[in-house]
Amino acid sequence: MKGIRQLAKHLDISIGTVSRALNDKPDVNEETRKRVLAAAEELGYVANQSGRSLRQGTTNVIGLMIEASQETVENGDNFFLSVTGGLQSVFTRHKLDLVMLPCPSDEDPHEYLKRMVARRVVDAMIISATQRIDKRIDFLSKAKIPFVALGRSSSGGNYPWIDLDFEGVAACAVARLVAKGHRRIAIAAPSTDINLGYVFVDAYRQALERHGLEFDPSLIIRVKSSEQGGYQAGTELLQLENRPTAIILIYELMAIGLYRRMVEAGVVPGRDLAVIGFREEPRARFLQPTLTCFRLSLRDLGTKLAETLLATMPAYSALYPKGAQNTIWPLELAPGESDAFTITP
Amino acid sequence: MKGIRQLAKHLDISIGTVSRALNDKPDVNEETRKRVLAAAEELGYVANQSGRSLRQGTTNVIGLMIEASQETVENGDNFFLSVTGGLQSVFTRHKLDLVMLPCPSDEDPHEYLKRMVARRVVDAMIISATQRIDKRIDFLSKAKIPFVALGRSSSGGNYPWIDLDFEGVAACAVARLVAKGHRRIAIAAPSTDINLGYVFVDAYRQALERHGLEFDPSLIIRVKSSEQGGYQAGTELLQLENRPTAIILIYELMAIGLYRRMVEAGVVPGRDLAVIGFREEPRARFLQPTLTCFRLSLRDLGTKLAETLLATMPAYSALYPKGAQNTIWPLELAPGESDAFTITP
Repeated sequence: MKGIRQLAKHLDISIGTVSRALNDKPDVNEETRKRVLAAAEELGYVANQSGRSLRQGTTNVIGLMIEASQETVENGDNFFLSVTGGLQSVFTRHKLDLVMLPCPSDEDPHEYLKRMVARRVVDAMIISATQRIDKRIDFLSKAKIPFVALGRSSSGGNYPWIDLDFEGVAACAVARLVAKGHRRIAIAAPSTDINLGYVFVDAYRQALERHGLEFDPSLIIRVKSSEQGGYQAGTELLQLENRPTAIILIYELMAIGLYRRMVEAGVVPGRDLAVIGFREEPRARFLQPTLTCFRLSLRDLGTKLAETLLATMPAYSALYPKGAQNTIWPLELAPGESDAFTITP
Repeated sequence: MKGIRQLAKHLDISIGTVSRALNDKPDVNEETRKRVLAAAEELGYVANQSGRSLRQGTTNVIGLMIEASQETVENGDNFFLSVTGGLQSVFTRHKLDLVMLPCPSDEDPHEYLKRMVARRVVDAMIISATQRIDKRIDFLSKAKIPFVALGRSSSGGNYPWIDLDFEGVAACAVARLVAKGHRRIAIAAPSTDINLGYVFVDAYRQALERHGLEFDPSLIIRVKSSEQGGYQAGTELLQLENRPTAIILIYELMAIGLYRRMVEAGVVPGRDLAVIGFREEPRARFLQPTLTCFRLSLRDLGTKLAETLLATMPAYSALYPKGAQNTIWPLELAPGESDAFTITP
């Protein structure tokens, strides 16, 4: 890797002139500029932006920590790549780059995060998949590293986060189903300690209560957040006594597995069982009957995450006057055919 | 962010003692060690591994550059997350970490790579989605940055790469179809300049020749490497005069879209049209009839990529005696029902 020093030596020109030529500054002879650029290309010159960074104490790189779990991998989850587009659209304005930090599934997320912070490759962090108790939040707060979390947690007190409106989705789904005459509504919730599972189940419970329906714990089906989990939820649902007439899913790809299990059992979604999915997903768009679900722009979510993060960073906060540092991100109902029938009592 | 200096000051202990306690070295009183660790936790101490790195001129971080194109995002491509597992299993042995560098779809991959190299966040690079002519390869070679490419290219001369056995897949698919009596075999190839498209089409052409079949350019259907591309390929296939009786797909998720289009047209895959997919993919596993495709372990591929890369890095090359620095990665046929019928002339 050649630096500016080697380049200057090779050309027998002063470092200052080479630097001015490379940085497109004035008072460099046009021919000299061309020679410098040609030699830079030829010798494989690489600008050392880290030298600049060390003086500023910054790397100009933001990390997005994701969990590379078996489930995420097998489901080919496009969630984070989509969010990435929105994040980059903001970071680009400030010449910041985004790197994704995939936490291996066999490593503790907190230990992984500590190590990545110690590597000093990023100035700030975006964390996701927050747990009910999430040590990462306390760690980042104490270490005074700018961060934003995609997801709430019981940890950390007052910290910047954005989370999806799980309460709104649960309330809307229950209200729709109740209006169509359903009284026994199951819910497929994650089997892990991820915080959104708690939020979603609580909101479902409250919605039932508002509509005067009794909460039956056997209707909470705990499965993996995956297509396979949806299949499993289907199996468990079929085995329930006094079978529910409707099910709400917490993860988008569950619908594909659930449909498959229902078809195998001769149960027709949208006729024998009402299904409401979670996030609208390109691959679930082709389900027949079409799935009632909820829409959000992951790109816009990424944009908001980036802006929330920059608002906490001294170098950028003036440009992003702090509005709410906590945002509940709304989802819009996308009605389909999967719950378009009425139960007659 | 607190460093060792602040920690020592806070505890009123020498920096040396704090350092020995943190690094689990002997001759530190057990009580002192506990006090140091507690204070480190309390104050949000972050080890500065970058200090160590600068002396070594390394970051101990490896970058995996991926293209965050619209297609990749919409298809929720799990390819890279799966490869990541294999990469990390090797890097972990050497306390190296992997970061993913998502090149925004509106940015030139070569320019993006140059900037990421200039940021000095990684010691080495894994690049993917190699183009026919790929400037990144020349750049990395000249700049003497250790790298390995997932994919061949016409650029760069002799450089380390691993590529899938597109030739083997095309040869095997054509042979299977010919054996079942097919004479008109279409192929859905990528519409971009990605190198694998050239390799695949060439191999298909040679296989036809070996079996004495005429090459008909109208049977090469150029579409996006996506589910939608598969749907589009279906539409174009239906419009072909003297309709082919078989189609080979270059991208795994094309099969889902193709099946959909065929069902709409009343054409039954596996009965009216033989379909051979590319890589076996969790989501394509549920297609009915089951898809004939090819299997590979992405985790093992990741392991091999990591080992090939480390063999080129002075600090690790002794541990990875250079075998072939170029590998064609085999895929194993996974026969399904989608081509299980015979054409009677």
